[in-house]
Amino acid sequence: MKTVYFDNAATTQMRDDVVKAMVDVMSNNYGNASSSHSFGRSSKTLIEKSRKAIASYLNVSAGEIVFTSGGTEADNLVLRSAVRDLGVSHIITSKIEHHAVLHTVEQLKKEYGITFDYVDVNNDGSIDYPHLEALLNTSKKTLVSLMHVNNEIGNLLDIKRVADLCKAHNALFHSDAVQSIGHYNMDLQDVPVDFLAASAHKFHGPKGVGFAFVRKNSGLKPLIFGGEQERGLRAGTESVHNIVGLETSVKLAYDNLEADSKKVKAIKGYFIEKLKQDIPGVIFNGRSADMDKSSYTTVNVCLPVPPNKSAMLLFQLDLKGIACSKGSACQSGSSQNSHVLAEILSEDDLLKPSIRFSFSIFNTKEEVDYVIAVLKDFV
Amino acid sequence: MKTVYFDNAATTQMRDDVVKAMVDVMSNNYGNASSSHSFGRSSKTLIEKSRKAIASYLNVSAGEIVFTSGGTEADNLVLRSAVRDLGVSHIITSKIEHHAVLHTVEQLKKEYGITFDYVDVNNDGSIDYPHLEALLNTSKKTLVSLMHVNNEIGNLLDIKRVADLCKAHNALFHSDAVQSIGHYNMDLQDVPVDFLAASAHKFHGPKGVGFAFVRKNSGLKPLIFGGEQERGLRAGTESVHNIVGLETSVKLAYDNLEADSKKVKAIKGYFIEKLKQDIPGVIFNGRSADMDKSSYTTVNVCLPVPPNKSAMLLFQLDLKGIACSKGSACQSGSSQNSHVLAEILSEDDLLKPSIRFSFSIFNTKEEVDYVIAVLKDFV
Repeated sequence: MKTVYFDNAATTQMRDDVVKAMVDVMSNNYGNASSSHSFGRSSKTLIEKSRKAIASYLNVSAGEIVFTSGGTEADNLVLRSAVRDLGVSHIITSKIEHHAVLHTVEQLKKEYGITFDYVDVNNDGSIDYPHLEALLNTSKKTLVSLMHVNNEIGNLLDIKRVADLCKAHNALFHSDAVQSIGHYNMDLQDVPVDFLAASAHKFHGPKGVGFAFVRKNSGLKPLIFGGEQERGLRAGTESVHNIVGLETSVKLAYDNLEADSKKVKAIKGYFIEKLKQDIPGVIFNGRSADMDKSSYTTVNVCLPVPPNKSAMLLFQLDLKGIACSKGSACQSGSSQNSHVLAEILSEDDLLKPSIRFSFSIFNTKEEVDYVIAVLKDFV
Repeated sequence: MKTVYFDNAATTQMRDDVVKAMVDVMSNNYGNASSSHSFGRSSKTLIEKSRKAIASYLNVSAGEIVFTSGGTEADNLVLRSAVRDLGVSHIITSKIEHHAVLHTVEQLKKEYGITFDYVDVNNDGSIDYPHLEALLNTSKKTLVSLMHVNNEIGNLLDIKRVADLCKAHNALFHSDAVQSIGHYNMDLQDVPVDFLAASAHKFHGPKGVGFAFVRKNSGLKPLIFGGEQERGLRAGTESVHNIVGLETSVKLAYDNLEADSKKVKAIKGYFIEKLKQDIPGVIFNGRSADMDKSSYTTVNVCLPVPPNKSAMLLFQLDLKGIACSKGSACQSGSSQNSHVLAEILSEDDLLKPSIRFSFSIFNTKEEVDYVIAVLKDFV
């Protein structure tokens, strides 16, 4: 059967060169990076080379990159330690963040009695900046957690503006950058974030590895205690093959960024154009039709389908071999509506099916034609 | 240069079939297991098949296996939640546990003001069972954390005896089984532990994946919050290739256990015999020369080397291509003595170098001959 994978915000196909680099490590470098003998030193060297390479793309020092098992762990590491060790008693976030942030913040409220506020979100999914500024006028030690690229609607945050605002108000700023690292250049000397979370599998790397960027002298402490790995910030034998896979995917993503992003952007543009042409009444959620204010990878559309047919849409697309998503992958199985769309759509539009289509370098315009034909047929 | 890898307690060479299984997943199954479309369902199926297979070897139900990024995370998950969510206010452990347990317990004392006791350890590294029983006579809600196989000296805990004791005293029992899962059969219907931690890379699987066994209805809650993966017990996109690598290594370990353990045991036996013959004055630390009371993989020896030459021994072995270890890998780089040996050796013997040699199916008797010749030469 023909299959079309338009769910690249959930996860991506791995690049062959990433798999190859990982196989090389698994077959030839099995030492424990904490061992002092030659087998251990080889693994340690691989890890430190990876750390240095990744750091250079973000213009930070190697010691500011902490390898984790993924973006969710990185979010948890930062948020928990900010509250427990850095004296943060107030968190500002938004209702359209990923659950890795929202559920962690709720848990921290339970455990530590911190307070938190949601910054207002406009109907296009953008942050209400004046409201953020108002919320920052507090005497409480505050951390702001706002994602760079929204995983459902693709909205781009003006991360520098938020970072500067936080700086001016003496607040810490963490950004879940899981959808942007590997897709957007980031100069962290220019953007004064304190913490970032990133995940390899969102840009053609392996699942189960990511990193936290932790600004020097932040005072952060571990989530996972034990050995002295990651300069004492993350205990546990390092997953050398996964870390090298992460490095390789970062390298390939940024070395080819201009050409790759152009290619993916063209597919998204073509998809939007065809939708407008063939599906009258389609609504683009958030800013996802605005090529400059949303990620070039993601579009989220509300389709003019009557409620009685709505439930069948994803099922029909799946039958036709088309992979796309209702909300984030984490919620795909549930019958609940997306918590992100619930914030920005009208009640009427929430009754219609909204679908996220997200693209990568492995997609083609022919695939777009196929998906549009199936959608047209259904609608 | 000739190399001999006798540091299999630190980590192990991966089996080719494990690498192959992982490559197959990485190349052909890149879906996010939380996605509801066909790509996602394929990944979900792989994970659930892995869970079921692993559970069957331990005679537990699939729902009792929680995949983690390794043994350290599993230890942290169990210990933290036991204190935070299960009302544990007292922990009994020993001074010869892995730092993944010891440092986590110290951290929990800081955060929650719990109390903890160390059970006495005899000079051979065995647990003082009457002392354990005395410590269990408390009205505090108690958890016992004792490892099944000690990672430095290889001592085997009578895990059933401890589990039964805990049961009788209404205490929870967690065992770091990182050095025993994959090496020893374990029927968890017969051994009433509440929690176990395991790690794939200790038995020829990939680094960066392991599991916690969490007895049904335990009430455990997550360490890492976010998505609903692992039935809500561990958020974060699953590392499908690593999980399949874990499954494959569990399967190969247990399907070949009789022949493999016999082979490794013969190498250890031969090593001990040659040491006794060629290095007069050698001391076997813990019970590591007792083939029934220590793991067949590990021997830890104190060598009759004068203090002025002592510091050079590991360095010389490394120069000769021999990988072995002073303590656990986590401490290899540090100048500190092993915290385990500090508990069981006399002050005089602590001045002499102690080395852990640990074996696997990939080792040979010829390698033993080479290492013995190098040691003899040095001593």
